[in-house]
Amino acid sequence: MRIKESVRRLEAYVPGEQPKARNVIKLNTNENPYPPSPKCGEVLSGFDLDKLRRYPDPEFALLREEIARQNATTPDRVFVGNGSDEVLSLMARAFVEDDEEIGSLDPSYSLYKTLAAIRDVRWVGIRGTGNGERGTGNGERGTARQGKVSLFLWTNPNAPTGEFAEPKKIAAFARKFPGVVVVDEAYADFARGNCMSLATAPRNKNVIVMRTFSKSYSLAGLRVGYCVGPKDLIEALYKVKDSYNVDAVAQAIALAALKDRSYHKKTVAKVVKTRKAFTKALSARGWDIIPSESNFVFAKPPTPAKAADVFAALRERNIFVRYFPGLLTGDRLRITIGTDEQMASLLSALDELL
Amino acid sequence: MRIKESVRRLEAYVPGEQPKARNVIKLNTNENPYPPSPKCGEVLSGFDLDKLRRYPDPEFALLREEIARQNATTPDRVFVGNGSDEVLSLMARAFVEDDEEIGSLDPSYSLYKTLAAIRDVRWVGIRGTGNGERGTGNGERGTARQGKVSLFLWTNPNAPTGEFAEPKKIAAFARKFPGVVVVDEAYADFARGNCMSLATAPRNKNVIVMRTFSKSYSLAGLRVGYCVGPKDLIEALYKVKDSYNVDAVAQAIALAALKDRSYHKKTVAKVVKTRKAFTKALSARGWDIIPSESNFVFAKPPTPAKAADVFAALRERNIFVRYFPGLLTGDRLRITIGTDEQMASLLSALDELL
Repeated sequence: MRIKESVRRLEAYVPGEQPKARNVIKLNTNENPYPPSPKCGEVLSGFDLDKLRRYPDPEFALLREEIARQNATTPDRVFVGNGSDEVLSLMARAFVEDDEEIGSLDPSYSLYKTLAAIRDVRWVGIRGTGNGERGTGNGERGTARQGKVSLFLWTNPNAPTGEFAEPKKIAAFARKFPGVVVVDEAYADFARGNCMSLATAPRNKNVIVMRTFSKSYSLAGLRVGYCVGPKDLIEALYKVKDSYNVDAVAQAIALAALKDRSYHKKTVAKVVKTRKAFTKALSARGWDIIPSESNFVFAKPPTPAKAADVFAALRERNIFVRYFPGLLTGDRLRITIGTDEQMASLLSALDELL
Repeated sequence: MRIKESVRRLEAYVPGEQPKARNVIKLNTNENPYPPSPKCGEVLSGFDLDKLRRYPDPEFALLREEIARQNATTPDRVFVGNGSDEVLSLMARAFVEDDEEIGSLDPSYSLYKTLAAIRDVRWVGIRGTGNGERGTGNGERGTARQGKVSLFLWTNPNAPTGEFAEPKKIAAFARKFPGVVVVDEAYADFARGNCMSLATAPRNKNVIVMRTFSKSYSLAGLRVGYCVGPKDLIEALYKVKDSYNVDAVAQAIALAALKDRSYHKKTVAKVVKTRKAFTKALSARGWDIIPSESNFVFAKPPTPAKAADVFAALRERNIFVRYFPGLLTGDRLRITIGTDEQMASLLSALDELL
């Protein structure tokens, strides 16, 4: 056979649907409802086409420097990838031996499981987000500590739950964990705190914080993610990456987005405000909502409605939310926070349905 | 230890230098001296910024369809990556078991060796390009056939030599080879032929042809490469790729470049014309040049000049060519074909030096 045995067995990760129709309300993949900073538009329209003739900066110096500056650290502790997905895939190759395992919370970002399968190692899921609200907590976390898990991916705030774990808790976990702890902070800009100071601390040996431009910067279409961590771990990522993994246009646009801090702050504030109002409105209709520190909510419809049915009924009305079948997730819907108008349309649809 | 043993041992691939100074003549990384199609500029300046909010098409449907159309095949036989480098890295993961090996010509694209090291498998180099001009040919190729090589990367035209192997030769090799044969056609647009019909043939079981936008389309800065091959092998690549590996801007620009066939043809013709003239001029000065079907020449300076010394002397004059130390390559320089003016400047510099 010509295809690797583990790849033949592999079930590909299924990303959220990207409906082609124009008149849909798309609240299924945690995209930002507001456009990227106008500074990104200026980069696009002013881009010197002739620059594309040449290979891009393989070490994205300008972008790294700005990331380092904004996080009060040095560029040698910063790595940038073709989306966080690439950063994750490189970590699976750099920090996991063939007989080791990858761990994450469960439920969490469903790509992690696929990532382990592609890397051909076992995936271990740990219940609960560290605050003990859901799942069994300590016992299973103990397993990860003592077992062969060498890379633990802690999404914070978690997805699809939206729960926020206190940085103290993650720090305590990392101190006892012998491998690498990656705090996937894709949604951290919408939260009340983050773990960046763990990653930049001079004595930090094993915590990497990962961020993305896909959510709070409205640049999902561009594919730029980055991470910050101990110098030796960051160096290992440079060793295993493709030579030119971030293209010249993406480097320039991401830099412009990063520099426009006031626009970013404003966009994030709008999403958080809508999240609060929407949470209130949905609660008032009898939904159970896990307190979210993200740009989505994970909500259970009032009895006797079933999440799967509500998902299907909304879809028929061209309103797309996300439904994850399964024991831990199948009773809820993950609803991305859109504009106030979009959330109002969703609420009206729900009022008609339920 | 937190870093994978094989990664700790790894020596990172060193891409060609990207000098920062403006007034250099850069003939060291086989970039195209002419700008991308003006249609690419129109895509950049007219790009709808709001589209970047959303994830890109994970299957790059429009780009795939156009690639399929131009190569008289179907989209299910086409895969696109974040540069050929990503395609190569995915192939190393999809087509090589942990105890198998990756083979290539030797000398060839030096990244292949690093690719095998990152994948933590052995690399096997085979002398000669299949036409028997250099190296020992059959004997060693026999080793690859009978050994554990499951992925063979045949660069054609080869780099750094520029030699072209007849498609017939590669077809014969592939028929006997039990694994996957990838014909890396990064430079094929500058050659007198190519192997695409091997990849698109209905009965083809194991030949993949890989192309890039970096060379003949002048889009090295954009990172788009693609490959065409049997449906089952292409499907395996989709399984192991990141969800959204090619960003929305890159998809749109590559599509525009592909569609502007007359511009592409014109640019390629100019480079080939300059290559012929430069080859003549350099030969007249006593250099030994391997007949090139690419956008560079691999040339040996007349005795007693040493390639390394000429390289260093040119570099001091801000003319960058590529020098690969080593037994098989150290007596020559790889010189990218630039504009007629750039080649004239190089020739004047050489006339002063030698």
